[in-house]
Amino acid sequence: MVNVAILGYGTVGSGVFEVINKNNSHISRRAGDDVNVKYVLDLRDFPGDPVESVLVHDFNVILNDPEVDVVVEVMGGVEPAHTFVRQSLEQGKSVCTSNKEMVAKYGAELLKVAKEHTCNFLYEASVGGGIPIIRPLNQSLTVDHVNEISGILNGTTNYILTKMSEEGLKFEDVLKDAQDRGYAERNPEADVEGYDACRKIAILASMAYEKQVDYEDIYTEGITKITKEDFEYVSQLGASIKLLGKAWKENGNIYAMVAPFVINKDNPLYGVRGVFNAILLNGDMLGDVMFYGKGAGKLATASAVVSDVVDAIKHKGKIIMTFWGSEKRTLGDINDFAMPYFVRVEGAGREAEIEKVLDNVQFISAPADSKVAGTETAFITEAVKGADLEEALKGFTVVSKIRVSQ
Amino acid sequence: MVNVAILGYGTVGSGVFEVINKNNSHISRRAGDDVNVKYVLDLRDFPGDPVESVLVHDFNVILNDPEVDVVVEVMGGVEPAHTFVRQSLEQGKSVCTSNKEMVAKYGAELLKVAKEHTCNFLYEASVGGGIPIIRPLNQSLTVDHVNEISGILNGTTNYILTKMSEEGLKFEDVLKDAQDRGYAERNPEADVEGYDACRKIAILASMAYEKQVDYEDIYTEGITKITKEDFEYVSQLGASIKLLGKAWKENGNIYAMVAPFVINKDNPLYGVRGVFNAILLNGDMLGDVMFYGKGAGKLATASAVVSDVVDAIKHKGKIIMTFWGSEKRTLGDINDFAMPYFVRVEGAGREAEIEKVLDNVQFISAPADSKVAGTETAFITEAVKGADLEEALKGFTVVSKIRVSQ
Repeated sequence: MVNVAILGYGTVGSGVFEVINKNNSHISRRAGDDVNVKYVLDLRDFPGDPVESVLVHDFNVILNDPEVDVVVEVMGGVEPAHTFVRQSLEQGKSVCTSNKEMVAKYGAELLKVAKEHTCNFLYEASVGGGIPIIRPLNQSLTVDHVNEISGILNGTTNYILTKMSEEGLKFEDVLKDAQDRGYAERNPEADVEGYDACRKIAILASMAYEKQVDYEDIYTEGITKITKEDFEYVSQLGASIKLLGKAWKENGNIYAMVAPFVINKDNPLYGVRGVFNAILLNGDMLGDVMFYGKGAGKLATASAVVSDVVDAIKHKGKIIMTFWGSEKRTLGDINDFAMPYFVRVEGAGREAEIEKVLDNVQFISAPADSKVAGTETAFITEAVKGADLEEALKGFTVVSKIRVSQ
Repeated sequence: MVNVAILGYGTVGSGVFEVINKNNSHISRRAGDDVNVKYVLDLRDFPGDPVESVLVHDFNVILNDPEVDVVVEVMGGVEPAHTFVRQSLEQGKSVCTSNKEMVAKYGAELLKVAKEHTCNFLYEASVGGGIPIIRPLNQSLTVDHVNEISGILNGTTNYILTKMSEEGLKFEDVLKDAQDRGYAERNPEADVEGYDACRKIAILASMAYEKQVDYEDIYTEGITKITKEDFEYVSQLGASIKLLGKAWKENGNIYAMVAPFVINKDNPLYGVRGVFNAILLNGDMLGDVMFYGKGAGKLATASAVVSDVVDAIKHKGKIIMTFWGSEKRTLGDINDFAMPYFVRVEGAGREAEIEKVLDNVQFISAPADSKVAGTETAFITEAVKGADLEEALKGFTVVSKIRVSQ
């Protein structure tokens, strides 16, 4: 019998408890041993809930019980999660987590501690919820060098942008609707400002390029400035706007960023709609591969956590994750990286002025029924550095400026 | 040092040789040991090619060399590949293969032999080329029960259907163009009749439902009857037509089939264009996840094979694949399974007659500029069993009948 302790009985924690109990015979057969939830840690009580019989309030009960082999950390937040996880690993207990903040901040350290104590630190559910991405990335990395990772890493913002795109709605109205449906938090900042996506791309970039990428260093721009009119223009091109987390390698530099991008139909991320997430990986041998699914949700995320639990049990005493160095990665400055931009400036008929300051510009008209038709000049630039574009547009009032994915 | 032998120096074999040599330091570091190609088996000579120094013509040289730890089988075809693989496994040498015919036919047997000799039989590249699907499926299966697998498993047919859909071309013209570009074989039967996709869904269904699914038992229909006019109709609905391999569980039965399906924009497979492949998996906990990438190609396929080689090295002496039983799976009869159909019958204005024999029919008009406009009646049925539909349409001349994915 293998004993598991779950830290936190929130959405994901109760999902893990449910999945392990519901598919127990199946999971135990695959793990090669009976899997039993011995403890669930939570500060709250849950009278009448089946969890009651295994509920504890003191982490030390779990830490000091040599029968606990695997700890599932699904409390969220950096502390005390990080301390509990570190202490568990130091006792040789493998840890499986869905906690992206903690993995982004302490992943390098915790992988090292796990290795030193010959146990595993697994974090499949920290990026993309139920989508298998950490393990396939870990696997692909054995053969390929990663040229680029690019992903729709946040379901809330993708839901909002999809609604804006397909139904011609305003940001504020869709956000309110998403909050009413429970797809967005009352305090939506972490999602709409891109902070959540930023943690996730930090984890993927740290893995892909083997050094700690601090999320504080990643240029991050949210979707609050995207308007209905932006979609009116880009839909004329058969394109859409998506919030992407990106990390890539160019001329020996590593770059990472989170920002809205105009993407066209040829990009496999174009078709990713609603609350779905997807991660597109380009390897030097593999070419493009994409992983798609629900990026959140109780049972999907729990399924990913439990697949880590089974892996931890099957590989007891063997390190299965590649670890990334704790040495900090200095990222290239994205302002030094040339990209095309979609730009709207105030005033109609300014094509000649624009062409004086920017080469190879492609102009776009607003649809005739748009409220901005006849009041603006809009265009797509060739690849240009951010600072150079700003300089060129000094004499114009910029209404909107969105990068275009290449 | 770990010694690898490659059986077959065709497209994939030369790709494996290239990948191992090109990314050698990276691969060796990840494998935890130096990886060396000691032999390449081929009946041909390759004067001047770097392979010359390791080329052998006799398989027994490899089989009898105790220094060979891992055998890569990329010859294709059932025999002698199967015999060579079996003999290698009996010597305790792990085998990595891209050979879908052999895996579909002898997968259960070879997994069993590998287990008995404590080595691994790995076949990531046999389905979906470079797309990681076998390993994630193996992983997801540890937790989830698979409700359904549905995939675009053949790049040639997807290229043809994409061209027909987007450029309004005829099957014959696109096939000829694909042959000229080298995307389709001179003898295209294996692709366009669905035989290739059938082998692949047999492998996935055997894994997902843990018993041998014989490909001979799978209902298989190709794309040769799909016409330009079929696309004219379905594009009116914002839908497309894709060749899908499907396996699913319903009322205790397992079903599997390969056939063209009308799919709409909400299906994540809708956006999979050109030579790309994708596999959509629905698990009871996980919900929908999709894996996308190039389903063929020298380096992508080779990358998948080499990731298996690294796995075999890292897990020497430990069985990492779930194996499926050699007991044969009796499939449910797909004619007993009700699905909606898209149907075209000869003669305009037959709506009233159709409604007499079929309930809840949705009629579709051909575009005004179609050559069949005004000559046919077309519609989508509710879910209906194949035999019942045939019976209902006895009095009509059916021009086209294509299943609709739900």
